[in-house]
Amino acid sequence: MSLSAAFDYIEKNEKRFVDELLAFLRIPSISAHKERDADVLAALDFDRKKLESLGFRTEVWPTRSHPGLFAEKIVDPDAPTVLIYGHVDVQPVDPLDQWKIPPFEPEIRDGKIWARGADDNKGQHYSQIAGVEAVARTGTLPVNVKFIIESDEEYDGEAMAEVFPQHREALRCDAAMIADSQIPDLEHPALTTSLRGIQAVEIEIRGPAGDLHSGEWGGMTFEPLDLVRWVIQNLRDFETGKVLLPGFYDDVIEPTAEERRAIAAGPWDDTRAAKSIGVKRLSHEKGYTVRESGTVRPTLQVNGIHGGYTGEGFKTVIGASARAKISMRLVPNQDPERIYQLFERRVRELVGDMASIEFRRFGAGRPFRTELSNPYVQAGVKALAEAFGKPAVVMGMGGSIPIVAPLADLTGAPCVLAGFGLPGDNLHAPNEHFPLACFRGGARYAAAYLHEVASRARARVAR
Amino acid sequence: MSLSAAFDYIEKNEKRFVDELLAFLRIPSISAHKERDADVLAALDFDRKKLESLGFRTEVWPTRSHPGLFAEKIVDPDAPTVLIYGHVDVQPVDPLDQWKIPPFEPEIRDGKIWARGADDNKGQHYSQIAGVEAVARTGTLPVNVKFIIESDEEYDGEAMAEVFPQHREALRCDAAMIADSQIPDLEHPALTTSLRGIQAVEIEIRGPAGDLHSGEWGGMTFEPLDLVRWVIQNLRDFETGKVLLPGFYDDVIEPTAEERRAIAAGPWDDTRAAKSIGVKRLSHEKGYTVRESGTVRPTLQVNGIHGGYTGEGFKTVIGASARAKISMRLVPNQDPERIYQLFERRVRELVGDMASIEFRRFGAGRPFRTELSNPYVQAGVKALAEAFGKPAVVMGMGGSIPIVAPLADLTGAPCVLAGFGLPGDNLHAPNEHFPLACFRGGARYAAAYLHEVASRARARVAR
Repeated sequence: MSLSAAFDYIEKNEKRFVDELLAFLRIPSISAHKERDADVLAALDFDRKKLESLGFRTEVWPTRSHPGLFAEKIVDPDAPTVLIYGHVDVQPVDPLDQWKIPPFEPEIRDGKIWARGADDNKGQHYSQIAGVEAVARTGTLPVNVKFIIESDEEYDGEAMAEVFPQHREALRCDAAMIADSQIPDLEHPALTTSLRGIQAVEIEIRGPAGDLHSGEWGGMTFEPLDLVRWVIQNLRDFETGKVLLPGFYDDVIEPTAEERRAIAAGPWDDTRAAKSIGVKRLSHEKGYTVRESGTVRPTLQVNGIHGGYTGEGFKTVIGASARAKISMRLVPNQDPERIYQLFERRVRELVGDMASIEFRRFGAGRPFRTELSNPYVQAGVKALAEAFGKPAVVMGMGGSIPIVAPLADLTGAPCVLAGFGLPGDNLHAPNEHFPLACFRGGARYAAAYLHEVASRARARVAR
Repeated sequence: MSLSAAFDYIEKNEKRFVDELLAFLRIPSISAHKERDADVLAALDFDRKKLESLGFRTEVWPTRSHPGLFAEKIVDPDAPTVLIYGHVDVQPVDPLDQWKIPPFEPEIRDGKIWARGADDNKGQHYSQIAGVEAVARTGTLPVNVKFIIESDEEYDGEAMAEVFPQHREALRCDAAMIADSQIPDLEHPALTTSLRGIQAVEIEIRGPAGDLHSGEWGGMTFEPLDLVRWVIQNLRDFETGKVLLPGFYDDVIEPTAEERRAIAAGPWDDTRAAKSIGVKRLSHEKGYTVRESGTVRPTLQVNGIHGGYTGEGFKTVIGASARAKISMRLVPNQDPERIYQLFERRVRELVGDMASIEFRRFGAGRPFRTELSNPYVQAGVKALAEAFGKPAVVMGMGGSIPIVAPLADLTGAPCVLAGFGLPGDNLHAPNEHFPLACFRGGARYAAAYLHEVASRARARVAR
């Protein structure tokens, strides 16, 4: 029942764990594609069987979208309870022709697992299960463990949180452990102290009743595609990176001097980061460093534009309509609902009677900031050091994990965010991969965290 | 050999002419689609057979792209020669689902012919052939007639003009008659006094080596799609409609007070035009009227943008690259070559080292302005009045006919532009159509023009 026994177990069983993960990755569980619904369920079922084999009691929680899986193993009602979150669904895979391997035929190459979901989130999530298995098989679990597993994170993203209130008792825990983020590199295990929220919207601008000849009407019409770019130009200042939506920054909490120092002292390197994605230099919001801009500052980004003729050759056409997908990353205390209202109001005002406009609202997620001094968070910092043999750093994360804020709200428990992906893992992109060393670190961390929580509980009882 | 006999002939044979046109329209001669190359040739061959049946000698002129057809009937080496231009290729038909009928299964409904090419240019072009037949069959042709027929106008657009110098003698003529434009309505037969030129370019901006997670990298990267909209924002001022390319207006000849008066006095009506395309109001360049902005002023327009994720749902991605198709409509004396150089230089300067950029240059056409006082142009004005029974107006046209400038240069002959499409004919768009009354007017005009030129030549000899 010692941590070193668990670490030994992880080492001895690594090949089997990875084989299990490869089987998991072969399930094309793309939640955004209706025709993959059966695969999404199969991925959830994969987890269910695995956790039942470890003695967990499981329940499937229906939602208005894809279901969730709950699992628990209560060893002692008086012991602390750790809740572990993961998701089994993955992003779509297009553009498929840019993949070096078929995305659902995983391969191990150069010490990395290559597949859609290898990092986000199957690889990270399965490393947690491996860590729990290691602790359970080398003694008895020293704390109660619950799993809450989503199969809808990359699609609706809000459906599971909606059913949380029906499961208040089941979700009760002392700490929630979430591995859906990243570390700067293998030398720097990292605890994530903040997440950005998100509000995503699609706008469709409709002008003339049909496409027009661009010579015949050019100079005389409001062109929907030109309107789209002009709307965006009025929402974001390219030179400064500032969002121009009136009221957008009202609720933003500025990073403290201490936070800014911590970010500056972190292992991030602009030049190395630029090189890792193949660009000459990075960008930043005026008045903030690159790394601050990417983690503790909000953004407005254009995730897609489509309008006019985009095929081979050229067509001198004024497209009747044009669409843009726009997302805003939010920081504490911005509220996605209020931000959406500001967005819709401003865009309507801009477009006026020049065209008609339609809004489609997509996933929203509140930003999150953790309390570093909380003992369960401190346990995470310690467990990271034990798992990696190196001191852990703390850092903000630019992405969003929509489940975190509602989970924290409902349980009142601290959310301990430590993920193990690396910056170049190609999340949401072709050729996603996940280093075996990251998988190993994740498994060791999960084991260490359970032990750390148990030992703190024992210390409290002894005191 | 009287004009009224030719008009009678047109009336009596109208049904047959239209049937012939329908057969012509059934040939899906989309020059931009390689798999339609045989159809493009078939359309050219349709014309060849028809003209040979009228006693014309024909030649096919190869080009580096689709070939041209030359036809001539010399009745008297000392008589004036009228050269008639048309094109038999058509625009692509997508989006196909917006067509009310299959685009190559023409139908006559509400007094209009519905099909791709019904107006642009098969309908207009075939009306000219009908007019020539009417004159030939009701006497002998009173002037020499040549045809120069393109099958590449909607694709490369420059290939036939390139071979003109090899055919200098064949092209010799006293006037060139071109029916590839439009009239404001059936009450106002119109002679086109100016055409805008064009320079079309596609830019592709490439940023990171692959797509990125927009949360992970948002705020820290130059996003190609955002760069594209920012480049456009630096090329065109949305509020004023001015093109911001330095040097763009250097060679622009301002419309004279007289031209502006003629445009203002013309039959154009902003409200009616807005209604015809289904928008609340039209746009204009600051300092110019709507109609001036659409005919005698240059533009910069965005014909297509594609980047990021544009499918169903939402994907929080930063696309690795983004493309925009941009065209500039030019007025005398702007030179497409110089404008392209200004464009490329400025866009390179804007993008700098933020991303890499690729340029693809598409069709270029010089702007054109006709000399209204030229007797062959005046013959056109008179012929229009005879054909329609109403005085003709003169007006500029917003579109481009790239062949006109090189044809005028090589032959030195006046180009007499009178087309018969109506503003709502959906050129280059779904549901293209052409009123039967326009077809009739075009045929009568061609007949009247040949008679008018012949009678002026006789008058000269008699004097």
